[in-house]
Formats: sequence, structure tokens, C-alpha cells
Amino acid sequence: MAPVKKGILERLNAGEVVIGDGGFVFALEKRGYVKAGPWTPEATVTHPEAVRQLHREFLRAGSNVMQAFTFYASDDKLENRGQVLRITGAQVNEAACDLAREVANEGDALVAGGVSQTPSYLSCKSETEVKAIFKKQLEVFMKKDVDFLIAEYFEHVEEAEWAVQVLKTSGKPVAASLCIGPEGDMHGVSPGECAVRLVKAGAQIVGVNCHFDPMTCVKAVKMMKEGVEKAKLKAHYMVQPLAFHTPDCNCQGFIDLPEFPFALEPRILTRWDMQKYAREAYQAGIRFIGGCCGFEPYHIRAVAEELSPERGIIPPGSEKHGMWGSGLEMHTKPWVRARSHREYWENIMPASGRPKCPSLSTPESWGVTKGHADLLQHKEATSTQEMKHVLEMQKKAKSSA
Amino acid sequence: MAPVKKGILERLNAGEVVIGDGGFVFALEKRGYVKAGPWTPEATVTHPEAVRQLHREFLRAGSNVMQAFTFYASDDKLENRGQVLRITGAQVNEAACDLAREVANEGDALVAGGVSQTPSYLSCKSETEVKAIFKKQLEVFMKKDVDFLIAEYFEHVEEAEWAVQVLKTSGKPVAASLCIGPEGDMHGVSPGECAVRLVKAGAQIVGVNCHFDPMTCVKAVKMMKEGVEKAKLKAHYMVQPLAFHTPDCNCQGFIDLPEFPFALEPRILTRWDMQKYAREAYQAGIRFIGGCCGFEPYHIRAVAEELSPERGIIPPGSEKHGMWGSGLEMHTKPWVRARSHREYWENIMPASGRPKCPSLSTPESWGVTKGHADLLQHKEATSTQEMKHVLEMQKKAKSSA
Amino acid sequence: MAPVKKGILERLNAGEVVIGDGGFVFALEKRGYVKAGPWTPEATVTHPEAVRQLHREFLRAGSNVMQAFTFYASDDKLENRGQVLRITGAQVNEAACDLAREVANEGDALVAGGVSQTPSYLSCKSETEVKAIFKKQLEVFMKKDVDFLIAEYFEHVEEAEWAVQVLKTSGKPVAASLCIGPEGDMHGVSPGECAVRLVKAGAQIVGVNCHFDPMTCVKAVKMMKEGVEKAKLKAHYMVQPLAFHTPDCNCQGFIDLPEFPFALEPRILTRWDMQKYAREAYQAGIRFIGGCCGFEPYHIRAVAEELSPERGIIPPGSEKHGMWGSGLEMHTKPWVRARSHREYWENIMPASGRPKCPSLSTPESWGVTKGHADLLQHKEATSTQEMKHVLEMQKKAKSSA
Amino acid sequence: MAPVKKGILERLNAGEVVIGDGGFVFALEKRGYVKAGPWTPEATVTHPEAVRQLHREFLRAGSNVMQAFTFYASDDKLENRGQVLRITGAQVNEAACDLAREVANEGDALVAGGVSQTPSYLSCKSETEVKAIFKKQLEVFMKKDVDFLIAEYFEHVEEAEWAVQVLKTSGKPVAASLCIGPEGDMHGVSPGECAVRLVKAGAQIVGVNCHFDPMTCVKAVKMMKEGVEKAKLKAHYMVQPLAFHTPDCNCQGFIDLPEFPFALEPRILTRWDMQKYAREAYQAGIRFIGGCCGFEPYHIRAVAEELSPERGIIPPGSEKHGMWGSGLEMHTKPWVRARSHREYWENIMPASGRPKCPSLSTPESWGVTKGHADLLQHKEATSTQEMKHVLEMQKKAKSSA
Repeated sequence: MAPVKKGILERLNAGEVVIGDGGFVFALEKRGYVKAGPWTPEATVTHPEAVRQLHREFLRAGSNVMQAFTFYASDDKLENRGQVLRITGAQVNEAACDLAREVANEGDALVAGGVSQTPSYLSCKSETEVKAIFKKQLEVFMKKDVDFLIAEYFEHVEEAEWAVQVLKTSGKPVAASLCIGPEGDMHGVSPGECAVRLVKAGAQIVGVNCHFDPMTCVKAVKMMKEGVEKAKLKAHYMVQPLAFHTPDCNCQGFIDLPEFPFALEPRILTRWDMQKYAREAYQAGIRFIGGCCGFEPYHIRAVAEELSPERGIIPPGSEKHGMWGSGLEMHTKPWVRARSHREYWENIMPASGRPKCPSLSTPESWGVTKGHADLLQHKEATSTQEMKHVLEMQKKAKSSA
Repeated sequence: MAPVKKGILERLNAGEVVIGDGGFVFALEKRGYVKAGPWTPEATVTHPEAVRQLHREFLRAGSNVMQAFTFYASDDKLENRGQVLRITGAQVNEAACDLAREVANEGDALVAGGVSQTPSYLSCKSETEVKAIFKKQLEVFMKKDVDFLIAEYFEHVEEAEWAVQVLKTSGKPVAASLCIGPEGDMHGVSPGECAVRLVKAGAQIVGVNCHFDPMTCVKAVKMMKEGVEKAKLKAHYMVQPLAFHTPDCNCQGFIDLPEFPFALEPRILTRWDMQKYAREAYQAGIRFIGGCCGFEPYHIRAVAEELSPERGIIPPGSEKHGMWGSGLEMHTKPWVRARSHREYWENIMPASGRPKCPSLSTPESWGVTKGHADLLQHKEATSTQEMKHVLEMQKKAKSSA
Repeated sequence: MAPVKKGILERLNAGEVVIGDGGFVFALEKRGYVKAGPWTPEATVTHPEAVRQLHREFLRAGSNVMQAFTFYASDDKLENRGQVLRITGAQVNEAACDLAREVANEGDALVAGGVSQTPSYLSCKSETEVKAIFKKQLEVFMKKDVDFLIAEYFEHVEEAEWAVQVLKTSGKPVAASLCIGPEGDMHGVSPGECAVRLVKAGAQIVGVNCHFDPMTCVKAVKMMKEGVEKAKLKAHYMVQPLAFHTPDCNCQGFIDLPEFPFALEPRILTRWDMQKYAREAYQAGIRFIGGCCGFEPYHIRAVAEELSPERGIIPPGSEKHGMWGSGLEMHTKPWVRARSHREYWENIMPASGRPKCPSLSTPESWGVTKGHADLLQHKEATSTQEMKHVLEMQKKAKSSA
Repeated sequence: MAPVKKGILERLNAGEVVIGDGGFVFALEKRGYVKAGPWTPEATVTHPEAVRQLHREFLRAGSNVMQAFTFYASDDKLENRGQVLRITGAQVNEAACDLAREVANEGDALVAGGVSQTPSYLSCKSETEVKAIFKKQLEVFMKKDVDFLIAEYFEHVEEAEWAVQVLKTSGKPVAASLCIGPEGDMHGVSPGECAVRLVKAGAQIVGVNCHFDPMTCVKAVKMMKEGVEKAKLKAHYMVQPLAFHTPDCNCQGFIDLPEFPFALEPRILTRWDMQKYAREAYQAGIRFIGGCCGFEPYHIRAVAEELSPERGIIPPGSEKHGMWGSGLEMHTKPWVRARSHREYWENIMPASGRPKCPSLSTPESWGVTKGHADLLQHKEATSTQEMKHVLEMQKKAKSSA
């Protein structure tokens, strides 16, 4: 019924900017439909109206991509995260595709199906076993005929390569996005080398998502681009960062910040921060520009508004937004009217209202070095004894920071 | 169809805690359905699914009150705020009541209709003229048979008294909520005296909403309670504050902060801040506890969770929330698992991630003193000449701060 | 040899500004001659060259008052503070007077002798006993013929009255300075009432010193002035505040801040802050303007420079200081040259370079309320048992802040 | 009269720790004897008692090196800095040596003579011309028979090599200290390569001083040590950093920070920060550990106290200092007594008391890149026209930060 749309590669090959959407798990957690910790997406089945509404808001904000809400919806993850399997991964994924398609049809958006890193990889299962999980998810995406595929949120480039290899069998365009920063993946593979390997594995679009703030992510994607160009390869680039300021992260990203995940509020980007991000990403040659955890619809709208001169498109949601504060032009207080200017908002240095809090934190970790981070990640330390020990180590780490 | 519910006064008289909802204009602005500046609620007609969804999220979070989304929906305000009147205030208000009722029927919530301060009062129109506006709005609420009425967001107790007098004619319970802090209303009337006057005008519930952070609002309501008790009167108390930390406000509230309304992100309260607020409000004897601008559904859920021991009710949305971070108990990283404790989150001092920003701002205003604030508010300074002057005064004020 | 100088009252009666000196204990602690904790001034005997040099620096900075370095030099305090009494209070005080006189003779400065609050008062000794201590100190000041007397650093106005009564017997001018803020003395006596009582006891100059930052102290002295004027009395006013920003103090001042006394560095005022203070004090009608703990010679010079237009005097030390950064006019870097302007330094908001530290602290105390603060102060809690308890209470207080 | 002391190389060869002194220009600026901007040391002639006293305080704090106060005392610099040459460089330098020797004789300290970078080098004068300046200064040091020589505060390794070559002709031990950070000198020569070149030029001790905070300087010296060891050379290492926290510096150091030089107060290190620095420097294998701008005597004492277990020496000044706050053990308030512990001070995160100030600044510069920094430095921009331009560029740079 919807008119035939240009595919993701047609758009990028034509030099168009593609606006991504924002992260569903954080947004729906705040709305009451996703549980922090497991972060699983069973709401596609249990509360489809909430998922649909969020898709609509991103569409309205200017998103050209509806990512089916399938994050962590592999059966091994659902099980691992304590989800009682009344609902299977397949059911969740199918419902997610239907909701994404339904809303995509309401505007100029494509549907993307995605796979993410698996507990199986971290527990050292074989390539065959890990690929089998991706294949199972891919089946749903093929059945539902998504427009393209994204392998995203991988900390290890090797697992991402495996994912790309599986997704490539579909014949659909494949994007690959790692959750790494400029220091590279968890084995210390640099962003440039990661990108080269992903392109060689078959990804047409490469980039990073999650784990770091926008400027850090753009920097990492720039390093990817340099690597790909140095290797005389070709690719398109994508970036979908956090909507949190995280200059104090270590190489493992925002999860190690003491505020994760329940006290990140003071770090949330303003719409003006987002406009700077969109400009920076555009100038870096990135053309698939979206968001991840922390992005609300107005953040995506800010990205779309910043790039509206280049794109010639104003998002539908801008009917309810005056660029650069122009909505304040008729405010009754003259000093508030005086805020209806680009110069004002571009230069604002917003206060936290929290004078007893610091500006930066010290990332936590437990004797982690790049080399054995993966070993550590699946280490189990659930006994009370061990937990106490961890707590004490934390305290010491804090006090010596 | 819905079972007969206990009314607002029955609940309060029985000593129950009533959980309010959050502010719709800020939440829907971020979602793309309300324009900052005018802040008018025509989305009830143009995008009912978005308004309905937000009601549902607050209901799920534990709200017992669905405030019909009629803020600034008086015809004089709609006109004043540049709304092209294809949609009348009555249409907006009727749709708002229908949406609130529809969702209230899905759970244990009452519908409230509300009126707010009017441009007519600020431009010195007569008591008769101002009351006529309230009457017009009340007609819709009577037609739609809301459960009770709220006169809220008044900076001048006199106008609030007029509103209460009009609403009282309905025979329905009336709550009155001023947007003032401990320094009193814009004519310098103390919170205690304001409360006494509102009770004498007929309000059964009195309190404050908007303009200040939770602890400041609780302080102001405490002063109201002391005033009422000293006058040997009786009332119930309500509080619906901002979800922003605003220790640096002047007496006119967050509108004068330089970050209003587009850079308030670093001030957003965490869920843990909300639990402290709920406890403080409860201990102050306040029993109608809700929120205003900045409140997201998870903020209301935190209030409901904090008071769940007293109420014996866990909100539906808590199925997706582990109290005090317990959802992290199975996280793969031991140092993240170590965050699954009350002590951890109760004591966290979250960083802003913005080391180049200050902790506090200097409120802006333009030679305002309490006495003539109202005069100033409707002063028009739209000529370019004047605007330049304002900008320069701002700069000076900033630099001498 | 020195020409006959105008006395303190002659100067103040003539409307002149008298510049005080800075606090010796903190300055000499940093130089290695005073021990933090006891804070006793035996260096006047053991290292006179160090004390003399500091006097000279303050004289050079513009001070008109050389306060003999006799702080805490009463025998009961020396003993209480663990000073082995090889050197008696009288010896220390005599040496202090000689050093002050020697340097005063080198310029336009007067010598002041001072007494401070005593352990005897806090341990509830009688008026007679306490006065005996002041008398003993006064004998030295009379023998050395100081120019005027200061009763300073009193937290309880009653003890300060006793001191004034003793000092008045000398026939010399008497100044009285409490270490209180706008909340009044430790029994809750307001600054206004304190001032009235001190004037009635015979003080010709009243004011505050130590414990709070400059703006807070000026505010307290303003309240004193209002009290005195309301009582139809006459007095001159003095202020000698900390050189630390302490907006987060409770009523007991900077001693309760967790940074006292070894981590106050980030709070040190700049010379530009000092110029604002000097202006504010002058505009409040205060004419004896000096400093206390934290003041270095350049701080006093900034006070003298700010008031040089009114006084028609530039301090000798200004030969080594370009007003408002003019010394940078010939810097090799153009962007540093651009800092040689008043506007630049007046508006600078200096960073702490400590992004992991907060802006404000929570004052510590141990269940103290104004009423029983004095009881607490001489409470002994030296057993290990008790100390542990205190440490735990501290931790709790911190975490609940 | 003084016993024959071990020379600097004997000490270092024996593995002893040598404690340096602190920066004289900043300390004497605060005391009123040096003018910020020119920073020249004519006080050695005009106010010898002030210079002598500061030497004594550092000796008392534990310094083993009295650096003759000859900074910027080359004739070309004195002239360049607008010093009216009533006093010649030679007079200043001779007086400086005499004062250093006089105080060195009072304890276990050596006298060092120093040369620094010259305006002649920056204005591209020849090697012969620049060396002539160093020779002229060296003549004084030889006449006064200093114990060893330091070429310090060089931004360009080439000029430092020239200085070392000149100083080596004396036959005395030569130390060479650059004012660079981990990014290397102003031509981008890495710390490692700089060190190798200095050792090859004849320096027995190499390191860095000034421009950066302690941890940054230690990091740069570590890189020097790695470079020297990789080149199979031998050297001793020295570090004399700022006493200011400067994590926000660019490669040119603290001069580009907007707070330089009159608003650095909030950045001053505590004594506890200094103990961490001393430990870090010691663990890095550095054995000549001192300070530069911002160091006060108590900072050097903290260095000496931290390393007293290794050295078996407590500085004389420690008679007036209780380690780790032990001087508070008898404080009258129990919560202050509770601060008399190492754990307390080691972990304190001191507040700035400035909630309206940021934690970090943005360094200023004017289109500077490493390559042409030197060109820029001697660029003259004194016309009003140009100055205005600079001011505007500053403003823009600030607002886009």
C-alpha cells in the first residue's frame, strides 16, 4: 500500500542524509515498559501501543529508519536475563517487525532488523553456535521482509564479523555498528582495523553506537573512515551515540560509570548539544546519523532540524518547535523573549542545580584491562561473600580516586 | 461501566495518599506534540493517541488522578499564544476530558478538570471578566462530569480565590494550587496567608505546583499548613513540584533561570531524588503528592514506590522496575551488580559530565521587584529597539553576577 | 622616632578608611611557623624574623594596623593547646608587641593588642575568673603601650562584653569583633543585639571577624549597624573576614566545613574577589576593613587598591602590581595581553581544575543546635570508643547529605 | 664555616632523594616583591630580607637546593620586560647568589645557579648571540662559585641544548629542565627525544618544570626516562611542577588558561595532593623532586614529609606540623578531632565554594598550532586596532567552546 521507497543504499549512494531513531530500551524504561537490568523487549507483545507510539514519535521527529525493537531478543539472552519464556524470541521479534512496518508505512521510513552481541560469544561458544543464534533471528527478519539489517552493539569485532557474515546471506543491505570508542574493541583492535574487517566481511555501512557520547562516537567513526580509506575500501558510515555526556568514560563506556543506569539524568544532552553533534557528524562525512540510549524524540528532531538546510526537509514534529527558541518570541517576560535567539542557546552553559555533586566521575571496574575484559564479563560472582568483597573493593577504588 | 470509585475527599478524609500525575506540557513537548512558548494543548484534538498514551503511562506508574490536559486552554490564552483558532478552547477541553476519563476507567484514577491563571487578570481586567473565563471552562467540566476541580498555577492569590469561588458553584470538590515558593505570591502574600484565603474561598485542598523544585515546594506547603492550622481552619494539602533541581531560583521560579525552557536537562531529578521528595512530602503531612513540569512516568512511579509501604499498593508499572536497583542483580559485570542496593543509590552524587558548566546559575529578571512583577509581565517590549536594550541589560546583569 | 600618628578614633571620626591586616596563624602555618590545631603564636619568640617579615608585607600592602600576634596567647589557652610552657604567655605577648611596634614605625600603622575567647569561658568559669585572664593580657599591652585594643574572635557576646569591660579600664580605644554570621552568636543573639550590647559595654568600634567569607561578614556587620542605629547609639564598624568562599557554612562557620583546615585551597579568594569585598564593605558604611584567616599580603593590597580613589593613597606594594592586570600589557602572547583589562578580571569565573570535586560541601557537626553548642564545645570525647562513634556518625551524616 | 656538603651528583648517585624548592616569582608576587607580567627578580637587590626569608622557609620545609633567584635576570629579558636598568642583570644575579649561599649555609642545602629561555632565541638570533647571553650569566655563577647549574624553563629543546653546552664549560654539574608536557616541545619534539638530546649535550640531570600540574609533569619525565633508557644512555631525573591543578591545559601549559596569572587560586594543590605527587614522582624513579610556580613552603614540606620514610629525615618545619592532621587531635569539637586521620585527608574531595564557576576552562590561544607557536610568540600586536581584534577573537573562541 505504501509507495515504493528508496532503499538505504540508494539513499546513501545518492549522498542523502539518513536520520536514525533513538534507543528504545532507555526511553521505554522511563515510560514503564522495559526493565532496567534485563532490558528485554517483550513489550512488543505485551504493550504494543507503547512501542508503536514511540516509533511514531521518532517518525514525526524525522527518523528515516524504524529499527524493529528486537534488542536482546535472542533466546539465549532472554533466558540469560531471567525472562520467563512464556513469550519466545521469535514472537517478540515478529511483533517488533510488524510494529516497525506499521509505523514506517505512515511516513518516509525504512524498517531495519537487528542483531546484537550474544552471551554465547562471551562464554566462548563456537563460531557455529553463535552464528546459529543470528540465523534464527534472521529468519524472522526475512519472513517479515525488513528493508535492511543492522549488526549492532558489539564489543568484539570478531563476533560482529560473524554476524555480518550471517546477515549477508540474506542478500539485504547490511550495516555493522560496534559499541566502541577511539580506543577500539575489547581486544584492543583499533576502530580503523575494526572497520576494515567489517567491510571485508560484507558490511556496506559501518560505524558505532551506544556506550559513548556523541562527540566521542563521531571521533571513533572518523578513525574508522580513515582506516577504510587507507585500505582503499569503500563504505558508508553511521553513528548512533548515547544522549549522555560521558567525557569521563574508560574504554568500556558508560556502563562502568557509577551513575549507570539510574542516575544519568544530569548528563542528558540538550537539543542544542544535539545540533552540534549532527553538524559534527555531517562534517565528518557520516550520512546515517541517529541515536541510542538516552535519545528522546526531541533529540532526533534536533538532528533533523540541524541538517534541514542540507536535506531540504523539515520533520513533521517541527510544527511544534520553533528553531533556536523562536517559540519564546511572544513570552510575556522580556528577559525570556530575549532567549529566542540562536546565539543565546548555542552558547548556554547549563547549570546542574546540584552544587554538592562533582562534574566528572571515576569509572568503576574490577581490575579490568583490555586483554581480559571479556573473561571478566562472564565471571559469576553471585554469592553474598563475593558481593561483599566487591562492595569493599568499590569503596576502596572510590576513595583512592 | 467503571466501578464506583472513592472520591478525592473520601480518600483524603480516610488518610489515604493520593498520587498525582506529571506535567503534560513538558513531557509532550519532548515527544513532539506541544510547542514550547505557547504551551497550548490542542494535541488533545490533533493527536489524541499521544495524549492518551501519556495518561496511560502515568496511570501505570501509579497516578490516581488524570488531570484533563486543559492547561492554557482558555480562549483568551489560546488566542494570546498565537493559536489559530481553528480549534476552540471548548473543543480542546472536551477532548481532554474524554481522554482523561477513558484512561481513568482503566484503573483506580479520578478525573480532574483544571483552570489556570489568565492573561485577562494580568492585563487588569475586572473580577467579572476574569470569572467569566473560568465559568466558560467550568461548563465543559460539568458537561463531562469530571470528578473534581483544580485551580492551579496561579501566581496571585487573588485570582486563585476568584477561580475557587467560580469552581465552588459546581458542588464538586475544589483544590487550589499556587505556583509560589516560600517567599509567597507575586504581591508578597505569604504562603500561610495565601492558604488561609484559599480555604476561606472554599478550597478543600490547598498547595503549590510548578515553578520550584520538590524540596522548595514541600517547604512552601508546610508554611501553608502552619498558616491554616494557626487560623484554626481545616484543609487537605497537595504538592506537584517541578522535576528539576532549582536551588538557584529567585521568588519567580524556574522561568527566570537562564536554562528555561530548553537547557534544563542537567537539573532533572533522578528516581532516587523523587523517593526522597515523596518521603519528605509525606512526613510534612501532605497527602496529595504528584508532579508538574519535567515529571516523566518513572518519576511518578518512584513516588508511588516510596510510599508503597504506607499505601499497601505497588503500581502496575513496577512489574518493570526493581526497587533500589535490584534489576541489576544479574548483570554480567560484578561492579554493576554491586549497584543493586539501596545504600548505593541513596547516596549517589551524580556527575553532570559537563566540567565546563557551573553548578548554579544566576536568575535573570529585568528590574523586577515583587511589587511590580505583575505590571512587568504584561509589558510589551517587542520593538527591535527595545529588544536590543534588553539584551544589553542581560549581558550586564550576567557579567556582574 | 616615628612622627606622632593619628589614632584609630581620630581616623574613623574623620571618615577615613583604616585598612586592617590579615590573619597571621594561617599565613604563618603555610610558612612553617605555626602549628595547625594549637594555632599558638610562640613564633614571636622563636622565629621573630618570620613574624616581622609578615608584618612588613602587610604594611607594604597598605595595612594601617599591626595587630600584635597574640592570638590564643593567654596562658590558659597555651596550656590547653598542649604548648609546653617553656615560654610564657607574657613572653609571647611582649615579643609580639615589640615586633608590631618595630614594623608600625616603618610606615603609617598603629599597633593593636588583642584578646580572644578563652577556654575558661567555655568551661563555665566565673566572670571574675575569665576577666582575670583578660586583665593579665592587658597588663602586657599597657606595658608596651599599644595604640588601641581589640577584643576579637568571640562566639558568645557575653564573653566579649566581659572582655570589653576589662579593656575599657585602660582608657585606650576599644574595638570588639565577634566571629559570628547573620544568624547571630552561639546563643542565638542577633548581630544587631550583639552590637548594641558591645557598644553599651564600651566598645567604640564593633564588627565581625573570621568564620565566614567576606560577603557574609559584611552582611552581618550591616545587621549590627542597623541594630545600633535603631537603638540610637553610635559606633564605628569593622570587618575582618576569611579569605575563603564559604557559602555552604552553617551558623558555626568554616570550622565545621569538612575542608577545615587543610583542604581550603579551592576556596581562596582572588584579588578581584577582594576588590568586590572592599567595595561592598565601604558601601555598607564600614570603615575599618581588613582580613583574617587566609588573607595573604596581596589580598590586603587589593583592598587598599580598590579604595585608593576614596583614600587618595596607593600602598607601597603597588609598585609591584599593575591594577586590573595591566602588568600583562607587554606579554609576548597577544591573548595574554588581552587580559590586561578590568572587564576581563572583573568577570572571570575561575575554574577549580578539579572536575571530580563538588562546588559545595555539607557542614559537619554532631547534633549541634544553637542552644547547646557551647556545652558541646568543651565536651571531651577522647576515648577511642567515642572517637569511633564520632567517625561513624560523620559517615552517616555525609551519606545522608 | 659550613661543613663540606655532598654535591648534587654524589647525592643522586647514592640514590638519595634531593628535595627542590618552590617557585619564587609567584610566592614573592603574593608577598608584594615581584610584579606579575615582567616577573623579574630585582628584589634580590631592593628587598633582600624578603628573598632571604623565602629561602629560609623553603630550607625549613626541607629543601636541599637553594636556587639563586635569577629567573629572567638576563639583561635582554630585564630590558625586554621594561625594567629600568638602574640595576643590571649582573647585580641582580650576584645578590641572588649571595642570598642563596647565606641561607644554604644554615642547613643541608646546595646553591644552584640557573639560566632560562631568552627573548633572543624567540626573535631568531644566532646560536652565538644566544650563547653569549648564557655565558654572561654563567660568569656570575662562577664568580660566586655555585654548587651546580640548572638550565630550566625552556620550551624549545634546541635552546636548552645551547644552554647546556655553555654551562658544561664550567665543569660543574648541569641539570636541564624543560617546561613541556607529554606532547613535547613547541616544535613537537617528544619528551623522550628531548631528554636524549639534552643528555647528549652534557646534562647529567634532565626533567621538566613549570607549565603543568604535578601528575602531568611526572608523566612527561617518565617519557623522558623511557627515551633515555631506550637510547642506552644514563641520567638522573628531576621534576619541579606547578602547584596548580591544570588538567584542562593545551600543549602550551597554564599560561593559556584564562585564569593565568591572577585567578588561579581555586586550582592550588592541597598538602595532601602534594604527598600524592611526591609518591608518584618517587615511584617513577625521579630523585630530584621540587616545585615551581604556586609552591609555598608548606607544599615542599609535604613532599619532604611524604618521602621521610625513604629518606630518614624529617624537615625542621615539621616541628610545626602534625602528619595527616594529627594537630587536630585535641580540637574542642569532636567532629574536627575526627579529622586527625590519614584516611580522612587522603580521600577528601575539597569543594570550591564557587557554585557559579565551572570545574574546567578552555585554554585560549590565537590560531596556534605547535609548528608556528614560536613565530607567534614574538609577534607584536600592540596597536589598539589589533588588540580589539584579539579581544573579539577571544570572545568568539569562548562562545564556541
